[in-house]
Amino acid sequence: MVGVVYENLDLKRERSRCSFDKEEITNLIDGGKEKTQERRDLEEFIVSDEDLKDSIPIEYLSHADKYSAELRKACLLFKKLSDPSNGPKDVSTVALLSTGAGAIALKEGNPLALHYIMFLPTLMSMCTPEQQEKWLPKATSLQMIGTYAQTEMGHGTFLRGLETIATYDPATKEFILETPSLTAYKWWPGGLGQTTNYAIVMAQLFTRGKCEGIHPFLVQLRDEETHEPLPGISVGEIGPKLGFNTVNNGYLGFEKVRIPRDHLLMKHSQVLEDGTYVKPASTKLGYGAMVFVRVLVIRDVAVQLRKAVTIATRYSCVRHQSELKPGDPEPQILDYVAQQNKLFPPLAATFGFHFAANYVWDLYNTARDGIGKGDLHLMPDLHGLSCALKALSSSEASNFVEVLRQSCGGHGYMVCSNFPRIYSLVTAAETYEGENTVLWLQVAKYLIKTRMDKSGGQSVAYLIDPNLMSNKIADLSIDSITNLFKRVAAGHVDLAMKELEGYSRRGMASHDAWNHSSIHLIKAAQAHARYFVADCFARSIKEGKFSAPVRSILNQLCELLLIYWLVERSGDFFMFAELNAQQLTELQSKYMELLGTIRTYAVNLVDAFDIRDEALGSVLGCWDGNAYQRLFDEASKSPLNKSTVHRESFEKYLKPLMKSNL
Amino acid sequence: MVGVVYENLDLKRERSRCSFDKEEITNLIDGGKEKTQERRDLEEFIVSDEDLKDSIPIEYLSHADKYSAELRKACLLFKKLSDPSNGPKDVSTVALLSTGAGAIALKEGNPLALHYIMFLPTLMSMCTPEQQEKWLPKATSLQMIGTYAQTEMGHGTFLRGLETIATYDPATKEFILETPSLTAYKWWPGGLGQTTNYAIVMAQLFTRGKCEGIHPFLVQLRDEETHEPLPGISVGEIGPKLGFNTVNNGYLGFEKVRIPRDHLLMKHSQVLEDGTYVKPASTKLGYGAMVFVRVLVIRDVAVQLRKAVTIATRYSCVRHQSELKPGDPEPQILDYVAQQNKLFPPLAATFGFHFAANYVWDLYNTARDGIGKGDLHLMPDLHGLSCALKALSSSEASNFVEVLRQSCGGHGYMVCSNFPRIYSLVTAAETYEGENTVLWLQVAKYLIKTRMDKSGGQSVAYLIDPNLMSNKIADLSIDSITNLFKRVAAGHVDLAMKELEGYSRRGMASHDAWNHSSIHLIKAAQAHARYFVADCFARSIKEGKFSAPVRSILNQLCELLLIYWLVERSGDFFMFAELNAQQLTELQSKYMELLGTIRTYAVNLVDAFDIRDEALGSVLGCWDGNAYQRLFDEASKSPLNKSTVHRESFEKYLKPLMKSNL
Repeated sequence: MVGVVYENLDLKRERSRCSFDKEEITNLIDGGKEKTQERRDLEEFIVSDEDLKDSIPIEYLSHADKYSAELRKACLLFKKLSDPSNGPKDVSTVALLSTGAGAIALKEGNPLALHYIMFLPTLMSMCTPEQQEKWLPKATSLQMIGTYAQTEMGHGTFLRGLETIATYDPATKEFILETPSLTAYKWWPGGLGQTTNYAIVMAQLFTRGKCEGIHPFLVQLRDEETHEPLPGISVGEIGPKLGFNTVNNGYLGFEKVRIPRDHLLMKHSQVLEDGTYVKPASTKLGYGAMVFVRVLVIRDVAVQLRKAVTIATRYSCVRHQSELKPGDPEPQILDYVAQQNKLFPPLAATFGFHFAANYVWDLYNTARDGIGKGDLHLMPDLHGLSCALKALSSSEASNFVEVLRQSCGGHGYMVCSNFPRIYSLVTAAETYEGENTVLWLQVAKYLIKTRMDKSGGQSVAYLIDPNLMSNKIADLSIDSITNLFKRVAAGHVDLAMKELEGYSRRGMASHDAWNHSSIHLIKAAQAHARYFVADCFARSIKEGKFSAPVRSILNQLCELLLIYWLVERSGDFFMFAELNAQQLTELQSKYMELLGTIRTYAVNLVDAFDIRDEALGSVLGCWDGNAYQRLFDEASKSPLNKSTVHRESFEKYLKPLMKSNL
Repeated sequence: MVGVVYENLDLKRERSRCSFDKEEITNLIDGGKEKTQERRDLEEFIVSDEDLKDSIPIEYLSHADKYSAELRKACLLFKKLSDPSNGPKDVSTVALLSTGAGAIALKEGNPLALHYIMFLPTLMSMCTPEQQEKWLPKATSLQMIGTYAQTEMGHGTFLRGLETIATYDPATKEFILETPSLTAYKWWPGGLGQTTNYAIVMAQLFTRGKCEGIHPFLVQLRDEETHEPLPGISVGEIGPKLGFNTVNNGYLGFEKVRIPRDHLLMKHSQVLEDGTYVKPASTKLGYGAMVFVRVLVIRDVAVQLRKAVTIATRYSCVRHQSELKPGDPEPQILDYVAQQNKLFPPLAATFGFHFAANYVWDLYNTARDGIGKGDLHLMPDLHGLSCALKALSSSEASNFVEVLRQSCGGHGYMVCSNFPRIYSLVTAAETYEGENTVLWLQVAKYLIKTRMDKSGGQSVAYLIDPNLMSNKIADLSIDSITNLFKRVAAGHVDLAMKELEGYSRRGMASHDAWNHSSIHLIKAAQAHARYFVADCFARSIKEGKFSAPVRSILNQLCELLLIYWLVERSGDFFMFAELNAQQLTELQSKYMELLGTIRTYAVNLVDAFDIRDEALGSVLGCWDGNAYQRLFDEASKSPLNKSTVHRESFEKYLKPLMKSNL
């Protein structure tokens, strides 16, 4: 860098005593040196493009103007990237969207995102070769811009309840799409409002008077020239939300809309011309996409949490407040133990979720290869783990983000801190792609089944290990603590099973017993997920290749996270893992020690996340630590501050009131 | 009511079997029959005024237009209410603001609120009679519109750190106000941006070369005619926030701004013409206002939580989803135990916080009367309780609101559910009027002092009761459980004290020991606050006058909340209160029973909160249960939906992309 670059002195001091190779951590997170370089190139490509910048921060705009502003950049971005002479090659489109580099240009969601994340992949996985030949060229060249319309106003996670109907008419060889009620309106699909002209619509397929269940149909929504909705199509956007306000989520209703027979995506199921329904070879074949998105969510959540941790840690280094030692200058708030207790558990959790996400990612790829060869044996474990980790990572990260926001006091409440936006994105993941409570109960079903049938995948094998409860607590090493998590998980599963059996013995029907046991079942699933992350974190450190300093840091973070989780729910460990009060006290002392150690490198560690200021999007967390100046500069962008008096409102409202001599 | 009024059948069924007098609960919450009538009159006055309605929901507007729209209504509202021929008499202005009836017209905060909540009260409590005579008429007639400027960019809760300087110049008999650094800018005061022309400014008073600490000054900011900022005044708004976006929070800087000597509010401290500083009789006299606002916060938080519970409970009654019994129609989600577990603890907590808020309110009034007579002995307890309850109620309510939002699935994420707004208002209370962690540590200081000095107010007397630990658990009655909470609180205080002593023994300075013990100190303060609410809840039921059905309901809610809190942190009860596994299991069974019982009257209970639709502001929680239709109608208000094609963005961005033949 040329010229004098400001750097806050507190940050400079921390950086001058870095004891590890930051690049090693960066590469670990990106997945290798090459991936780091690719990411940096892509970010640079986007950041250096003046056309992708906002003239005014979007939070000042009206709802409609926000949409226009972001659509402009979305169109530009995809156009530029489609030209191979423009910037980096071999860019996975997914990396561009949501939390990836694309978030630098589009902070609150991309109205074209679903086209790439759901529409194209579904065409690729659910179409016959003939269908692909017909549609893929139009879809990749963006003549067709599509979304994926599944959720309805009245039905989300419970797919069987979807009401939209597609009835086959053999006379015309068409399907007739119908929205039979208000609750059957499609509701939520991204881009559906004003952006897309096509959609994959999930509907109940009726043929020969029989319902064959939910199937995907390609439906044209708008004229390709005029963009006007086609006859019978009612479409619009659903209005403002907690976040994602530029995704253009929409609604969609059908009144006797006819589409050709071959607009049913027919790779797996078919309807013949005469209306004969041909079943798919396996009902699980269409399941891959949902798992894939859930695995992406786990990764995205970790990205968002790293941002929040970076902002709060740097700001805590820069911010001085109150007094520790009477008479001394105000200390950095990073030196308050209560502050460290807010910052470092989430810092540690970013690594725990990183390793867990990697594990599921690998499992997903292995399972997909197997499915290609007809081998489905990894599916239960993949389903169970993707549900458990999606639910755990999204809920933990949401809580952590809010603690981190509050650790920055009032300034964290400002949009320009970027905490409000990060929270809105992370907490959404608690609901979309399978509502968390529903997912926990699915995980519980897998756990109970494993325990009862004495069978199940690798992630649940511990539940049927005869030696499960025999290991005594030898010491308070990471291995021993992990073992405690295992016993707690198993204990919860047993307790839930006993409860189920108790209700059954008293004559309750099994579905009622399940409902009445659901609180314990959910706790069992959560304990299982925590054990998995704890174990995966510990194992990944053991099995990975790291320099000595980085290995030591990872071990400290792992230990901190495990103790933090344990202390937060010590009752479970007393109940199920024979923990005693003395051991708890020892663990708490260890925890205090770890906070002190991590304090020495926390700033360097978040630097190693390598999130550039444009991606961080926070005046409080900027690399140079010039938080107050940036906070002030950001306020000066407010249109209300463009003149010394806001004439319009003063003349119209305030002045008459002041002069009214009340 | 005339004509056919829609009422959802599920709600109707619940309402047809109400077993208690709803009005009794309504009066309980309002504080008596008359208060209920007053509130209803005021609400009706506001609701029936067509001028106070929005032509378009403010969430669609730009930041600047939101401000104008809300300022219009704020001016109108206060103008109308100042005319005694207009609507209800004797309206406490505070009831109009924030969460009161005023929130019907101004959902995201009132730019004139601080004038009434802080500016006027401070003038009344801190001015001499001469000052009051001069300023109050102008302030009540709104020629002066003021705010209260204390927080600075660099300093919030730690008042001694404030940097703004007021130096007395005996030559001209003026104070010179100065903002010595960027971090000294006032930051956050409501209405300060473009609205107010005066402010009470808290600044370090320097006279005769000596700093006498923080004092309040009345400072004119803008010309009373033109509204232009006066020379040396730099003022503007701070930009968008998570919520409160129409409060017009502002910043303020001074460059050698001179104000007359008698603009120091001199009721307690004075500066004589020659610069002599005259000390106040007691440093605690100015403290009342801060406590008052904290007490208001506890009440406001309960109001917001009642809104969130009402929305989620009604929607859970109306929403049908998934299946319980295979083959049966989709059940109301209110019948899922996992859903009840999300709804009923917050429902119970609204009553717990209600009774606790009443207690502190009464204590505040008693203490204020005492202070008037020079009796300060209630101050420590009032300070301790207002801090503890503000921190507990705001943090618990924030967590509950988010659980309630998520219990409504994706629709809870929409602004028109009103959950995003309710959350933004409640979570703000975790930070303003004393950041919660800071408050917890102040409470802890009071607890430790009590334990060490064997003295303290009524709320902490249990800590020095020699019989504290002698009662064995006789049964699992509410009294016994309350007793467990007491032992846990005392146990935490002891543990924190032991830790402090341990650090001191090992030679640590006392401030370092305090810092290193802060995690346990905070836990002690939280356990104390929970015990207080538990005890106050139980006692208020015993001592209050209720019909048998209402008493029974209150007892069930109290028991539910206590067991819920206990189970959530069972480890503490194992550690400190000799709880055993068998008892925990019994409590969990009792909890399940209570969920079932409360299920039978939950809908009627939230009806009894008597929050009219206009105050609830939620399409999901409306009285008639017509949630889906209202959701759809609300979306139709989006300007993006006004035409079938959003021409501007389509022609400019989308069409060129689609035609570009990528």
